[in-house]
Amino acid sequence: MKFRRSERLIDMTHFLMNHPRKLVSLTHFSHIYQSAKSSISEDLVIIKNTFEHQGIGTVQTVPGAAGGVKYIPRVKKENAIQFVDHLCELISNPDRLLPGGYLYMTDLLGDSQILNEVGKILASAVADRDIDVVMTVATKGIPVAQTVAHHLSVPFIVVRRDSIATEGSTVSINYVSGSSKRLQMMSLSRRSLQEGSKVLIVDDFMKAGGTINGMIDLLNEFNATVEGITVLAESEFQEERLIDEYISLVKIKDVNVKAKQISVSAGNYFSGINEFL
Amino acid sequence: MKFRRSERLIDMTHFLMNHPRKLVSLTHFSHIYQSAKSSISEDLVIIKNTFEHQGIGTVQTVPGAAGGVKYIPRVKKENAIQFVDHLCELISNPDRLLPGGYLYMTDLLGDSQILNEVGKILASAVADRDIDVVMTVATKGIPVAQTVAHHLSVPFIVVRRDSIATEGSTVSINYVSGSSKRLQMMSLSRRSLQEGSKVLIVDDFMKAGGTINGMIDLLNEFNATVEGITVLAESEFQEERLIDEYISLVKIKDVNVKAKQISVSAGNYFSGINEFL
Repeated sequence: MKFRRSERLIDMTHFLMNHPRKLVSLTHFSHIYQSAKSSISEDLVIIKNTFEHQGIGTVQTVPGAAGGVKYIPRVKKENAIQFVDHLCELISNPDRLLPGGYLYMTDLLGDSQILNEVGKILASAVADRDIDVVMTVATKGIPVAQTVAHHLSVPFIVVRRDSIATEGSTVSINYVSGSSKRLQMMSLSRRSLQEGSKVLIVDDFMKAGGTINGMIDLLNEFNATVEGITVLAESEFQEERLIDEYISLVKIKDVNVKAKQISVSAGNYFSGINEFL
Repeated sequence: MKFRRSERLIDMTHFLMNHPRKLVSLTHFSHIYQSAKSSISEDLVIIKNTFEHQGIGTVQTVPGAAGGVKYIPRVKKENAIQFVDHLCELISNPDRLLPGGYLYMTDLLGDSQILNEVGKILASAVADRDIDVVMTVATKGIPVAQTVAHHLSVPFIVVRRDSIATEGSTVSINYVSGSSKRLQMMSLSRRSLQEGSKVLIVDDFMKAGGTINGMIDLLNEFNATVEGITVLAESEFQEERLIDEYISLVKIKDVNVKAKQISVSAGNYFSGINEFL
């Protein structure tokens, strides 16, 4: 069946969105739609322009015989600022206060719309880095890691604090939780990470950075390199932090249980990067 | 700025894909694109036809003043069969064998492309049910629940086997693991689920059904109702199963450690439902 331009644009948009960062040859599209490569090229120009104008991302062209196009999810700075403002407002709701000054954020980590935006914005920040795999720690890091990994089109792996039979042999390390100073254990399935992988560490929350430091130690055991660290939220921490290079979307500056006030601002996201559309 | 048809089709496809099951008024699109409602209507007919033809889903029209359109993700039966076949092939790889006859499936649960398909196919099966929230149990159920919840456009919540300060007060129950007959504990944050919610239970794996039975007991404590149970994989189980109504994508029929053979077939997915495009 031959496709009309309108049909091709719809189907290509769907395909590109489901396959971020994947190189697709023009021959592939030309074959599927029974259309000339020149028509496909014109389609892709329209898609690229619309994606960029609407803050969806960009379409990169890779020239040559082995070339093709790649959809790279990217955000517009104004859209990212608007979303982070909205996130700050949601987090500063005093209903989130829990005994001990903890904040209830589980609802945000179970909201597909929010996760989708978080994933796209965090992935945009590292779009130009060479990343093989996203790594996080169970339990709350998983939803954030999954959405970032989707937008980077790489697998994600999960470090556990327990050990179960369905993971096979594991590598374990002890680490000191930065804020509570307690000694804890974390382990990663040996099969889940290849030696020498380039890893992006993703987590929902960072205070002193002890858990993330533990993940870095664990990666050393696999001779893997840390290509970046991104967190949804960081919390103000008075003492010297164990981690200094990271990207955070929001920063929890102060939690006043007595006055029922939570002070939240944008994280270091906008100061560190310039990868916007 | 006025948009051309080609630009509208691309942007609307992106919007609908990011907002499954959300009712969007024609006025909304008409306002964004500075185009007449009649043009928007024509656009939506083209999108609906292409979505259906390409196995992306359908676009439902809700008439009336409060009406609009909704994108419902659905799959074509032939595409679902092809994907499930591929999944069976992946799972039957003898390299997955672990001591004790367990199977290593962690890589599949960290693959965004696979998860995206799994989520769309499982969500299609319950597309006509009225579901408020998806529930799963930590850790391995989370990626499957997240992708199903995304395609149903509802939140997902996570039952835990431990208890942490950032969840607030919890409701806990004891349950008997069906295959090991051990007594275990699971708990759910009280805030995470409203009384009377309609819940879809999602998990990665079911053997005797003890864990899922535990989740059903837990839902009773919230006066919530179970609207369905979907699992990625079920395992052959000789004794009477604790759960009888569920949807599974694949079925692990036999694991022979000595002969290094894993026998896998499609689950009951195709026998139970007719919700295909």
